[in-house]
Amino acid sequence: MYCFNNDYSEGAHPNIMNALIQASLKQHTGYSLDTHTEHAKELIRKEIQREDADIHLIVGGTQTNMITISAALRPHQAVIAPETGHINVHETGSIESTGHKVLTQPAPDGKLTPALIGKTLDWHTDEHMVQPKMVYISNTTEIGTQYTLAELEALSAFCRQKGLFLFLDGARLGAALTSPANDVTMADIARLTDVFYIGGTKNGALFGEALVILNPELKPDFRYMIKQKGAMLAKGFLLGIQFEELFQNQLFYEMASHANEMAASLKTVFSQCGFPFFSESCTNQQFPILPNELIAQLRKSYQFQDQQAIDDNHTAVRFVTSWATKEEAVRQFVADFKKLAKDCGR
Amino acid sequence: MYCFNNDYSEGAHPNIMNALIQASLKQHTGYSLDTHTEHAKELIRKEIQREDADIHLIVGGTQTNMITISAALRPHQAVIAPETGHINVHETGSIESTGHKVLTQPAPDGKLTPALIGKTLDWHTDEHMVQPKMVYISNTTEIGTQYTLAELEALSAFCRQKGLFLFLDGARLGAALTSPANDVTMADIARLTDVFYIGGTKNGALFGEALVILNPELKPDFRYMIKQKGAMLAKGFLLGIQFEELFQNQLFYEMASHANEMAASLKTVFSQCGFPFFSESCTNQQFPILPNELIAQLRKSYQFQDQQAIDDNHTAVRFVTSWATKEEAVRQFVADFKKLAKDCGR
Amino acid sequence: MYCFNNDYSEGAHPNIMNALIQASLKQHTGYSLDTHTEHAKELIRKEIQREDADIHLIVGGTQTNMITISAALRPHQAVIAPETGHINVHETGSIESTGHKVLTQPAPDGKLTPALIGKTLDWHTDEHMVQPKMVYISNTTEIGTQYTLAELEALSAFCRQKGLFLFLDGARLGAALTSPANDVTMADIARLTDVFYIGGTKNGALFGEALVILNPELKPDFRYMIKQKGAMLAKGFLLGIQFEELFQNQLFYEMASHANEMAASLKTVFSQCGFPFFSESCTNQQFPILPNELIAQLRKSYQFQDQQAIDDNHTAVRFVTSWATKEEAVRQFVADFKKLAKDCGR
Amino acid sequence: MYCFNNDYSEGAHPNIMNALIQASLKQHTGYSLDTHTEHAKELIRKEIQREDADIHLIVGGTQTNMITISAALRPHQAVIAPETGHINVHETGSIESTGHKVLTQPAPDGKLTPALIGKTLDWHTDEHMVQPKMVYISNTTEIGTQYTLAELEALSAFCRQKGLFLFLDGARLGAALTSPANDVTMADIARLTDVFYIGGTKNGALFGEALVILNPELKPDFRYMIKQKGAMLAKGFLLGIQFEELFQNQLFYEMASHANEMAASLKTVFSQCGFPFFSESCTNQQFPILPNELIAQLRKSYQFQDQQAIDDNHTAVRFVTSWATKEEAVRQFVADFKKLAKDCGR
Repeated sequence: MYCFNNDYSEGAHPNIMNALIQASLKQHTGYSLDTHTEHAKELIRKEIQREDADIHLIVGGTQTNMITISAALRPHQAVIAPETGHINVHETGSIESTGHKVLTQPAPDGKLTPALIGKTLDWHTDEHMVQPKMVYISNTTEIGTQYTLAELEALSAFCRQKGLFLFLDGARLGAALTSPANDVTMADIARLTDVFYIGGTKNGALFGEALVILNPELKPDFRYMIKQKGAMLAKGFLLGIQFEELFQNQLFYEMASHANEMAASLKTVFSQCGFPFFSESCTNQQFPILPNELIAQLRKSYQFQDQQAIDDNHTAVRFVTSWATKEEAVRQFVADFKKLAKDCGR
Repeated sequence: MYCFNNDYSEGAHPNIMNALIQASLKQHTGYSLDTHTEHAKELIRKEIQREDADIHLIVGGTQTNMITISAALRPHQAVIAPETGHINVHETGSIESTGHKVLTQPAPDGKLTPALIGKTLDWHTDEHMVQPKMVYISNTTEIGTQYTLAELEALSAFCRQKGLFLFLDGARLGAALTSPANDVTMADIARLTDVFYIGGTKNGALFGEALVILNPELKPDFRYMIKQKGAMLAKGFLLGIQFEELFQNQLFYEMASHANEMAASLKTVFSQCGFPFFSESCTNQQFPILPNELIAQLRKSYQFQDQQAIDDNHTAVRFVTSWATKEEAVRQFVADFKKLAKDCGR
Repeated sequence: MYCFNNDYSEGAHPNIMNALIQASLKQHTGYSLDTHTEHAKELIRKEIQREDADIHLIVGGTQTNMITISAALRPHQAVIAPETGHINVHETGSIESTGHKVLTQPAPDGKLTPALIGKTLDWHTDEHMVQPKMVYISNTTEIGTQYTLAELEALSAFCRQKGLFLFLDGARLGAALTSPANDVTMADIARLTDVFYIGGTKNGALFGEALVILNPELKPDFRYMIKQKGAMLAKGFLLGIQFEELFQNQLFYEMASHANEMAASLKTVFSQCGFPFFSESCTNQQFPILPNELIAQLRKSYQFQDQQAIDDNHTAVRFVTSWATKEEAVRQFVADFKKLAKDCGR
Repeated sequence: MYCFNNDYSEGAHPNIMNALIQASLKQHTGYSLDTHTEHAKELIRKEIQREDADIHLIVGGTQTNMITISAALRPHQAVIAPETGHINVHETGSIESTGHKVLTQPAPDGKLTPALIGKTLDWHTDEHMVQPKMVYISNTTEIGTQYTLAELEALSAFCRQKGLFLFLDGARLGAALTSPANDVTMADIARLTDVFYIGGTKNGALFGEALVILNPELKPDFRYMIKQKGAMLAKGFLLGIQFEELFQNQLFYEMASHANEMAASLKTVFSQCGFPFFSESCTNQQFPILPNELIAQLRKSYQFQDQQAIDDNHTAVRFVTSWATKEEAVRQFVADFKKLAKDCGR
């Protein structure tokens, strides 16, 4: 049984594990004030070409979203997200638990646009309604799509004009930046957003997200917020060591590329067999729409999740690959899939 | 420069690191639904002799306190803590951030008693004041002291009589249970409290606290609370693997014993040189009151923290040992201390 | 310039003002523990035929919604509302400010149904999402529509089957119960909901909403919640006196009937002139869709609000009548409207 | 049975009731955007000699404290109050319910000083603790004492130096400003604080507190905060009308003077009979320490509250007078008290 459920089934890349072992018996300063963390931040600042960025390494993504959004907003302010946004559907009301409404717009491809944001702004006009103040986007999105540079530039310009903070959730930023469809760099993201994060958990670290704060308004007292939300890791050097490894030899990009390539092989076989897709993804999540009968056959040997029922006989399903996905497993899947699809009349 | 600042300067015990390496390239179910976590829970249930306990493995202590307390209380309810309690002073208002008041009583030895709790209950009598509903204690306390079985039994009986939940923060439970002054077992704690946790971070794990819920009222929907507060680790198997190691060969107790023994050597030399203590500790935190001049000399070779100024010339300082504290470092410290104390006229 | 903006432009019915004057110089017990409040509660219990109901008199509607919902839910739980629900759009994120998500479904007529609620339940299945626990409806709704007895019975049965609390916002309950389309009694509402409130502010009181708690699970410690949210009025007898007047001589129903009758006259003239409506209302809010040119003419003599642009030339507008709306003002409006409509070619 | 329990047993001054009656049948703009409110604000701005002040009229005191403090603080920030502060003891954790810790210092006379605040600042030094950002004081205090001009100037200078907002709760500001011990004007308070409020509820209004914001940092979007916390009164003109009356003919000061004079008569008889006081009050709350036997006798004819047991035989009790306290009731009390005290051997 091989698992395509997600990109966090395995531990971490061997380089990272080795670095952790090397450091384990040494003494480090606590609470992310150690030298490994300092070095990791320098590597990231260099990567994004912004010496002025404040960087904080945090264990998980929901945590990072919750801390960042609650730190940025006053009590009456709200964050705008696409309906499919992770903060809206899969974080158990984490943002609301800090007192803030998530305002949503339907976005079939998982992406916000100035027009969609504008619709929300248009009817939030006075003190009887919350005040939109931040825009939340994910790259890649929750359905594997990604923003082009032109799209990000348009969003950024619009948000700046309207006085909105732009926050990019990069839990799968590696997949976005190494996709064949990508024309964005990490420096572009740093230039165009107020705050974003670089995901480690879903790209070969044991855990860890690097939050990058560009807008000086969002910087003050941020460590207080991390501590208050229970997110200040005592052994913060564990995060520093991992991000050192991710960014000192292009490991971050290599692992994401591998995941994308493995997904591309899956995409190819789905296409070749004539199946349509729920979303246009060139990244490590693929959402083919398959006959339920074929899905049942595949589940005898493979794990993957349902995304959404399409009709009585078809379901969009989700296949996710990772830095650790084995080439032979993908080859085997391709062979198995072709055979089963043929049995189903393709 | 050797560091006695805390018990989380190093990574994890080699057994734990090896287990993590072994598991790193395998596929695991996410979000703590994996087999390692299930096994770890079984080991803990056996250790505490309570098959009915709900157990959740959580990354950090502040997080565990915040989740547990906010899950247990209705909006108008409060938690009672000693003035020195970690939730009162060193968690950046984490409990208040979830909407609840922390009611405190001065407790010079860091421990609550029925009499102290009763004082708080006496003047919280109607709806113009918050309603006390939970009691928070730490074992060991923040100043290294510990509860006896008789004390815990008295607290437990009182809380049950008054309808208060009793929550024990065991961030340093290992140190308490292996102290020469201890007469309590983990099964006693499970019998006497409604909920408690077993600290891994400060006792040789990379991170992790095992929350044990005994009272059925506190069990429903607890995983929702963990997720909402950003504390559900994607790769939850990392926690499971660590607690398996901690509890399958007495490693938890061995590491805590080592820390206590190292601290006992420090305590001995402080006593021998005639210095008094800020608190009566038989555990891995020692708080000698030293002349400021001697402190300055010691700081040339050793790191440790100030606890509190006692007078113009003396300060209570804090020395902490851990599972990783080296015997030779302690021997060297003892020798250095004797010499420096002598220079100071002792 | 006559104002049809809302039903809270005037003070209170003369009977209420007189009763307040009579009581003003006497001494009363504070915080709603006075005899007037006790008497008002008895009158309401008799009206709803439920001696076991807990009743609390609270100043305003947003406040009542916020207190009731936050008192009923645990931190991870959410309330389901129609997209047009007052708590969703016009309370500045008040519910979210207490930590809870408002889950919405589009409901073109402003009313929830078991099918709509079921859609929300269907995809909230595990701890990665909030847990729906309460259903919020308004009667009349924010767009003047109202629930039939059959609809309420279906909702009630469904909520009980699914373990959901049913909460009815009755800010305009008087308008609903005295509408020609109504087949519901206040006793029905008490029988079918877990908690509801009877609006005074929008029906001839200076201010005040009577919250009625039927479900014993929702009763404990409710006064703590009122106090904590800043809603315990020092001179609570002011609320008691007003609800005594509302319920001792059918004044509550008489005032609501008057408002509905005045609105019916407006509805008639809109219909007679051939204009369609944004919603099917038999109550004190009417939403005709009028040509923008006619609207501009009307605004020279009358105040009323825009509801929503329909197309480039037409807008749905909102006319609201109240207990205090003057018959001669309505007569004048009808005459003016006919003339202006004719000028516009009707 | 005459009641000295508090200063909110009666309704409102006849002038206020008359003004409310006059306005009741007219149409007003909702939500405090009416002309009465505008006029009331102008009167207050004139009284405090600050044309730049933002003023908001809010129903109750707990509400005003909750809104003001939660609007001013970021999530990790805390408010410093004396241990006896209303927000600390008698508001059911209202401030904590908005996510903020109340830091307290014992202050036997109910008043904060720079030295007391400094003690709190001294140990809140890093991100492991909350960050003090606001200072809360009451004038008069909860035990009837009051600040001198010199004390307020010292507090103000200290807070400005330390970057702390100074917030004065004036629920009983009238009593303070008309006390024989007073040397402060309302303009002084406006000059020395960042935000304060002028209490109506406890000084002859039906309800209402006028919040005055001086510091521009605290002004933005304040109406959003009022609405979100359920405190935006639909018929806000009720507040405007009351504050017009309070400030157009010195009625505010006249009523407070009367209350103080009535209390002075009580104070005189307590002193003459040789009883000590729990606090030094020249205002409308008096706290004599009386023999329990005498208290029991007095309770046959008068209502008043216990403040605190002093020893087995004596209790500090609280007598409160108001704008509505009748001179003949006080005369009768004085006569009764002298007789009963004599019976007790004085």
